[in-house]
Amino acid sequence: MIQVEEALSIIAENSTRILVQKIQMHKALGYILAETVYSPIAMPPFRQSSMDGYAFIHSEKHQYDIVGTIQAGDHSKIKLKENEAVRIFTGAFVPNNADTVVTQEHVMANENSILITIMPEQHTNVRNKGEQIGEEEVVLKVNTLITPAAIGFLACLGITEISVYKKPTVAILVTGNELVEAGKKLPKGKIYESNSVMLQAALQTIGIKKAKVYKVKDDLKAAKKALKEILNKYDIVLVSGGISVGDYDFVKEALLENGVQELFYKINQKPGKPMFFGSKNETLVFALPGNPASSLTNFYIYVYPAIKNRMGFSDIHLKKIVRKLQDDILNTTGKTLFLKALYDETQVRVLEGQSSAMLNTFAIANSLLIVPHDVESIKKGELVTLLPIG
Amino acid sequence: MIQVEEALSIIAENSTRILVQKIQMHKALGYILAETVYSPIAMPPFRQSSMDGYAFIHSEKHQYDIVGTIQAGDHSKIKLKENEAVRIFTGAFVPNNADTVVTQEHVMANENSILITIMPEQHTNVRNKGEQIGEEEVVLKVNTLITPAAIGFLACLGITEISVYKKPTVAILVTGNELVEAGKKLPKGKIYESNSVMLQAALQTIGIKKAKVYKVKDDLKAAKKALKEILNKYDIVLVSGGISVGDYDFVKEALLENGVQELFYKINQKPGKPMFFGSKNETLVFALPGNPASSLTNFYIYVYPAIKNRMGFSDIHLKKIVRKLQDDILNTTGKTLFLKALYDETQVRVLEGQSSAMLNTFAIANSLLIVPHDVESIKKGELVTLLPIG
Repeated sequence: MIQVEEALSIIAENSTRILVQKIQMHKALGYILAETVYSPIAMPPFRQSSMDGYAFIHSEKHQYDIVGTIQAGDHSKIKLKENEAVRIFTGAFVPNNADTVVTQEHVMANENSILITIMPEQHTNVRNKGEQIGEEEVVLKVNTLITPAAIGFLACLGITEISVYKKPTVAILVTGNELVEAGKKLPKGKIYESNSVMLQAALQTIGIKKAKVYKVKDDLKAAKKALKEILNKYDIVLVSGGISVGDYDFVKEALLENGVQELFYKINQKPGKPMFFGSKNETLVFALPGNPASSLTNFYIYVYPAIKNRMGFSDIHLKKIVRKLQDDILNTTGKTLFLKALYDETQVRVLEGQSSAMLNTFAIANSLLIVPHDVESIKKGELVTLLPIG
Repeated sequence: MIQVEEALSIIAENSTRILVQKIQMHKALGYILAETVYSPIAMPPFRQSSMDGYAFIHSEKHQYDIVGTIQAGDHSKIKLKENEAVRIFTGAFVPNNADTVVTQEHVMANENSILITIMPEQHTNVRNKGEQIGEEEVVLKVNTLITPAAIGFLACLGITEISVYKKPTVAILVTGNELVEAGKKLPKGKIYESNSVMLQAALQTIGIKKAKVYKVKDDLKAAKKALKEILNKYDIVLVSGGISVGDYDFVKEALLENGVQELFYKINQKPGKPMFFGSKNETLVFALPGNPASSLTNFYIYVYPAIKNRMGFSDIHLKKIVRKLQDDILNTTGKTLFLKALYDETQVRVLEGQSSAMLNTFAIANSLLIVPHDVESIKKGELVTLLPIG
């Protein structure tokens, strides 16, 4: 049995392998950039007006003849004389020898000419070519998170594809003779299977959309056979159930017989103690407790950072926040507690009903409050650390 | 021109209409429950052992004969006598007249009998039927967010489908003669179109996966025709560009001529001033500025809460956080500023390059820092409000 911190560092060490893939811009949200991207063009690609107004060659003169119109998207070969101006719009090409744009609010105009009432300084309202970025300059550095703004920035440079770190493929193996699929009638002694759809949803929150679910009976042979196939096909395997100490908890044996190397088994925490973590080649295996609340707790604490690590994130854990505790907490277990809690802008309250078999509390919680194993009591009003979930 | 706060309240008032749909459990993540759900079954559905051990009728005796085994999932009709016990596993059915389970760590056993070394109290390790929830009791209340835990809880009760508030359907209409699709060669005077893929990504962050993109030339007739179709088909329409004051900014006219009612036009802010918000029947229209950084800023500030409101969220805005400012800010504009900024656990720094045409800064920012229109200066070390974005 190991402490939570040790388990976390073993997982962090063993989940660093990253793979690279090409991805199209419109699918790239939430990935981490696997290469530094350089701009194929200057942006703006030409001198651009930043206002609706009139482009001219800056001088002492206030009156100019209008010799044309340049709309955004036009390419103009107009060459202005000293007393000439062109009507121009935001984003439009500024004629080669013009150096200044006066905004339309600062002129009086008729059809043929303008009178500048407030003279701008030279170069005003002209965006230079490459002002935002020059050709071959760095667009985004390797390891940048692809946000909507990053997608917009890459797209405006004409980039259609980038290299990112791959998301791992994930399989969920559910064991348990007592489990019946929702929608069917519930025979006596059985319960509905819910961990697979719950874990799939939890995986969706970090962008893993298609975790494949396998189900086997509580039977060593069946589990061994299923695992043999799954271990060769997926980057991460979550096994749900069969990992306690009972005679029918055969998952560990099935894993070891398939050549999975044990990295740890059992963590000094509540809920979620009976968890196995191991690896075979590059595949990581998390055998999670069958109790739903334990399973989801361990997903957030252990599986989440492993997946983030594989995706190339530098900050792999759930974000921690600090709040003022609304009630006393006693911890006589000597274990690290992860308590379902509800926080607001300043405070946090531990919810009633912390049983590992129950999801009713988890379903209305917005955070897990951490009580370290060596902390025996926390008083009302003290600051505590929690992990927002949702 | 109105202030930011007024714009926000007009949007909140006009985006309250919600529609209800049935959805299957595995697709329900991130929706808001449109009805209170009652449990079709008791959970646990029978008296359950919470330990691997032995079930017996509690008495003063320490020695019991083993008369059978009940595995999780078994239904047993065993009726125990006073001196009998059954081997039982976590989650398994507790025989009708047994009242206590002794954990296996507290017995000495051979094949036929056990000796209890540490006697548990009566009823220990037996979960009563309905201990988590009784039949017909409330599972989750209307307006609850469907999290992974909520999905697990609903699924373990055998619920396969729930009623949720619908996500709105969204169309993006892009205008601009200057725009060329990424992947093509860039003619002089043109730029790459990036707002549609950027807005699609921003919509993805709030669960709108399939925003449809329409493109039209800068032409009143074409815009009118496209809008006519779009306004009838979608719940929310985002128009990108064509909403400033130039001669070619015809979007407002095209909207009004299509019967869109103006709710406001122009907001006292920077960037993002030239924005139109209106409605036709139940469709909301946001005509966003064409400049990418303005467009994305206004998406986060205005479109985001409208969509959250339509989805039934009670907390519709981006979460605000407070950090210590690392540099002085001067605001001589009289406008509300939304500044691209980078925050960490304690501080925030305003990034260089706040131009509305540029996304380079936005792409590396993790927040928008709000400077209210009536605040002229904020000193280093003062607390400021920001909106984390990602």
